[in-house]
Amino acid sequence: MTATHPDALAVPADLETPSLVVDLDVLERNLDEMANLCRGHGVELLPHAKTHRVPQIGLLQIARGADGLCVAKLGEAEAFADAGVSRMTVGYPVVGRDKALRARRLAERVDLTLGVDSVDGARSIGEVFAQDGREIKLILIVDSGLGRVGVQPGEAAMATRLINEVPGVRVTGVMTHEGWVYAAPDRADLHARSQAAAALMVGAAESIRADGTPLPTVSLGASASARLAAGMPGVTQIRPGIYAFNDLGQIALGNATTQTCAVRVLATVVSHPDPRRACIDAGSKALSQDGLPAAAHLGRYPGHGLLVGLPGWRIERLSEEHGWLRWHGPGEPTPLRVGQRVQVVPNHVCTVFSSLNEATAVRQGEVEATWTTIGPGASR
Amino acid sequence: MTATHPDALAVPADLETPSLVVDLDVLERNLDEMANLCRGHGVELLPHAKTHRVPQIGLLQIARGADGLCVAKLGEAEAFADAGVSRMTVGYPVVGRDKALRARRLAERVDLTLGVDSVDGARSIGEVFAQDGREIKLILIVDSGLGRVGVQPGEAAMATRLINEVPGVRVTGVMTHEGWVYAAPDRADLHARSQAAAALMVGAAESIRADGTPLPTVSLGASASARLAAGMPGVTQIRPGIYAFNDLGQIALGNATTQTCAVRVLATVVSHPDPRRACIDAGSKALSQDGLPAAAHLGRYPGHGLLVGLPGWRIERLSEEHGWLRWHGPGEPTPLRVGQRVQVVPNHVCTVFSSLNEATAVRQGEVEATWTTIGPGASR
Repeated sequence: MTATHPDALAVPADLETPSLVVDLDVLERNLDEMANLCRGHGVELLPHAKTHRVPQIGLLQIARGADGLCVAKLGEAEAFADAGVSRMTVGYPVVGRDKALRARRLAERVDLTLGVDSVDGARSIGEVFAQDGREIKLILIVDSGLGRVGVQPGEAAMATRLINEVPGVRVTGVMTHEGWVYAAPDRADLHARSQAAAALMVGAAESIRADGTPLPTVSLGASASARLAAGMPGVTQIRPGIYAFNDLGQIALGNATTQTCAVRVLATVVSHPDPRRACIDAGSKALSQDGLPAAAHLGRYPGHGLLVGLPGWRIERLSEEHGWLRWHGPGEPTPLRVGQRVQVVPNHVCTVFSSLNEATAVRQGEVEATWTTIGPGASR
Repeated sequence: MTATHPDALAVPADLETPSLVVDLDVLERNLDEMANLCRGHGVELLPHAKTHRVPQIGLLQIARGADGLCVAKLGEAEAFADAGVSRMTVGYPVVGRDKALRARRLAERVDLTLGVDSVDGARSIGEVFAQDGREIKLILIVDSGLGRVGVQPGEAAMATRLINEVPGVRVTGVMTHEGWVYAAPDRADLHARSQAAAALMVGAAESIRADGTPLPTVSLGASASARLAAGMPGVTQIRPGIYAFNDLGQIALGNATTQTCAVRVLATVVSHPDPRRACIDAGSKALSQDGLPAAAHLGRYPGHGLLVGLPGWRIERLSEEHGWLRWHGPGEPTPLRVGQRVQVVPNHVCTVFSSLNEATAVRQGEVEATWTTIGPGASR
């Protein structure tokens, strides 16, 4: 890689490695593009902030047109509330009295909606709210095909009815994370999967409305499908996370290019014991162990991220602090130098933020800010 | 799991999940056992503190007989120095002027040794030290078979000679991380691998001494082999990390039992959409994506950790915040309850500490302390 490689971000030469760098110009363009698209379709944009866990980025998303934030856990919601975010959905089955007590305090200062996928879960929350005659908005998690959490679409109406019988809670919408769209091998299939997810969710919402429950929100997630889902009739909200930065997963799916990818992990070659092997100082505690989400594209983007400007070199394996490089190119290996800096487009940006717990924001090669993620307890 | 299951740690009922819990009685027994073993063999114990990255645990290790600490990165060394640790080895190829400047400041207040595996790396460090006529101790990283960093054993003498020609540095020992011992399928093979690693390193040291360089330190790593390596003639230092806590990897290798494993990840069942599937609130941001280090034992311990007291249930897959449980037992699934708490023996304790960045220390079921890991920058 040279400093002028077209896929390299301009960064100060003295940034220590390993570091996560965010280019603010690219980030802002990505935020604007999605906000404009949502405005155009009349759907709400609730970016998933578990991607970055950085209060300043959440505020920037709202300043540039987002309607609030989605988060995974109450710990994240509390930290974003402290930073001034006033509307959030916790897109996770919130369960248990301890969480309910925290949610009740949080609901006093922000417009809060909690994920739910069981009557037992709803009851453990409702108990605390009903005690003071209050009510918390819930959003029913529907399993659109991922097989993780959520009720089946055909059970959505019955689940809503049973949950709404629990004092202290009220179901106001349905949501899904259509993570199975990531398996799409090409654009046409991605389009078809996105349409299918939207149709399932709109159908689930209609079945609930037909059962007599008003249901304003039909919410889809996933940066992979967000742009397509936003245009589908009946969808009222999208919750993409990665779109703000993009990563190799989004590039592989055709949703991004290296030019629209706002992040790089800076690393240094620390060892080069033979011409076909080397190590960089970014291991799983920087890049995370996450593979490419789009497994269908592993053939084109093998390994633990894309080494910018070093075709033939592959990040074949990670230890905690070591990225194991191996030459896979034709002919003789491109020589590396101990001390040489490299840029990596990471496979999955969400887990890089939470591995390094810090990012450096640059604009035109100059540092504008250093951001730290929400501290310990974010996952609770 | 019931509260009285023999493999469960006693923990307060109100700890929020997901949490990493450390039992202090078990931890202290583990520390004492290894310190006594090292004292018995007359070898130094430099526990690898990248395992926990918790200043208080590092101090406890020293209070209970360790001779100093090993760390992976300068960022860790700086934080442990701030906490009062006075002797450390950075067991990583330290490369570059920025690192050298930090190492020079650090060497003013602690007894510091830096890893090296190349003349270029040594030069980038030596330059800064030689400037004021100072000298920094280096330890030569030897590749004993892992194929990651380090010089080959047969090149150790030549590498030492070339590095010692660099002004400002002096090689005082050889070290290896014999990570390949983790592939041992049984105790006999583990013993053979540990002996082989020790023999290689003692041989490399002898070749350096035969070349005329005094070389006090012969250092092996890896909790898997530490107890065996400590007894091998010529080994002067061991650097185990996981031994303090143990984990499923050590249990699989026969180095530990659930009773000597000081850690559990507490989690809550948050979703149970069908009798054969459920989700807990501990995903890769709690348990990490690390598989069992001892791949040879995957058949006995499949998945992302051991669910205490729930045979038949397996943590089959992780998303960032979801642990996907699936029933693999014979017959009908053991029923779970939304809201139920579970304890997980993690595959790899090092990456759990760095995922959650926090641990709760308990003794006889009561919380004694909450520890946080070194903040952002630990990996630099």
